[in-house]
Amino acid sequence: MKIHDMPGGFPNPLRIRIVLAEKNLTSQVTFVKVDIIAAEHKQPAFLAKNPSGTVPVLELDDGTFLSECTAITEYLDNLDGRPTLTGKTPLEKGMIHMMQRRAEAELSDAVGIYFHHATPGLGARVQPYKSPEWSGRKAWGERHRDKALAGMRYFDGILRSNPFVAGQTFSMADITVLAGLVFAGFAEIAVPADCTRLVAWNASMQDRPSVKHPA
Amino acid sequence: MKIHDMPGGFPNPLRIRIVLAEKNLTSQVTFVKVDIIAAEHKQPAFLAKNPSGTVPVLELDDGTFLSECTAITEYLDNLDGRPTLTGKTPLEKGMIHMMQRRAEAELSDAVGIYFHHATPGLGARVQPYKSPEWSGRKAWGERHRDKALAGMRYFDGILRSNPFVAGQTFSMADITVLAGLVFAGFAEIAVPADCTRLVAWNASMQDRPSVKHPA
Repeated sequence: MKIHDMPGGFPNPLRIRIVLAEKNLTSQVTFVKVDIIAAEHKQPAFLAKNPSGTVPVLELDDGTFLSECTAITEYLDNLDGRPTLTGKTPLEKGMIHMMQRRAEAELSDAVGIYFHHATPGLGARVQPYKSPEWSGRKAWGERHRDKALAGMRYFDGILRSNPFVAGQTFSMADITVLAGLVFAGFAEIAVPADCTRLVAWNASMQDRPSVKHPA
Repeated sequence: MKIHDMPGGFPNPLRIRIVLAEKNLTSQVTFVKVDIIAAEHKQPAFLAKNPSGTVPVLELDDGTFLSECTAITEYLDNLDGRPTLTGKTPLEKGMIHMMQRRAEAELSDAVGIYFHHATPGLGARVQPYKSPEWSGRKAWGERHRDKALAGMRYFDGILRSNPFVAGQTFSMADITVLAGLVFAGFAEIAVPADCTRLVAWNASMQDRPSVKHPA
């Protein structure tokens, strides 16, 4: 298997590198660097692998390409027939998919809009692919910083009743929230001081082997 | 089980009503109407069920709430231990989740931005919850109409090589594309004339019992 992504802890590549570590699959993967600072992911050669122009992309040995973190996680987590990140029972599957989607919509997607529209984002070579007519119009981006802060408060509340984002066990949903907080760090959106439970959970996550030493 | 949604063929409620029909679960569900035209889904009583303020929401008999169409579909599809919509093998799961996420990102999310920002959307009572500072600024919305049209051309191409969106069998990904086209109809975004395969696929889907007679 190959993973087309970029090293350096970028949020979506990180999600899959944590999954690989969780599933002990890192040694089975070759990493192919995609220079996203140079907008390589928006050029035809990459778009042939993933028309949505996002990293990471998983390339199977038969040449099949899988993109979207949720999809790659479902694939990798089920390869050994013993899913540990995406749920075993119908209710676990439902809760995990709900919380991971919520982590995208309420946290990382909002950070992304702020990062790409209200800050210089990934720089001049990527900016033309990020709604150029809005550059300099910060209100849209800043509204989403507020949304990301509200998302952090929401997950802080969730973690006051559950040890993990989707309930009693670590799952894909925790990885998505983790990556969202990494992304917020890139975008210089600080976690509100009152989110003490989210901060404590994040600190404990940093001790998890897959998070400490992702692929 | 209860489903909190609104009748009338709204895109996300429709997705789950098709799933219920596919899984022969319609008779086990009570529908509770949420008046989205009156913005009932943005009020505290509903936000207590789903803090993201979206329909549909599945309420289990023990009072657990599940939202997000993907999550509800995973739950319902796995209840009988015989998933038919979300994949059986790791690769099927991966391909279906990739294509359904792509259908959201490239089609229905883009239609939604156009609908809520470049048209009157669901009307005056919902508009305050949809980025009021952008009302009247159509460029953002119109850019996403173009994105939705590009999404239709993408799925047209996919359906020229596969009978269904994620490969050889009907799946959750087909339902998401179907609902995206319904939403495009609401928003008066016509399918491009050259998308003949997408149009033919959509017509054949209309003969499918679950689509013809969803819950």
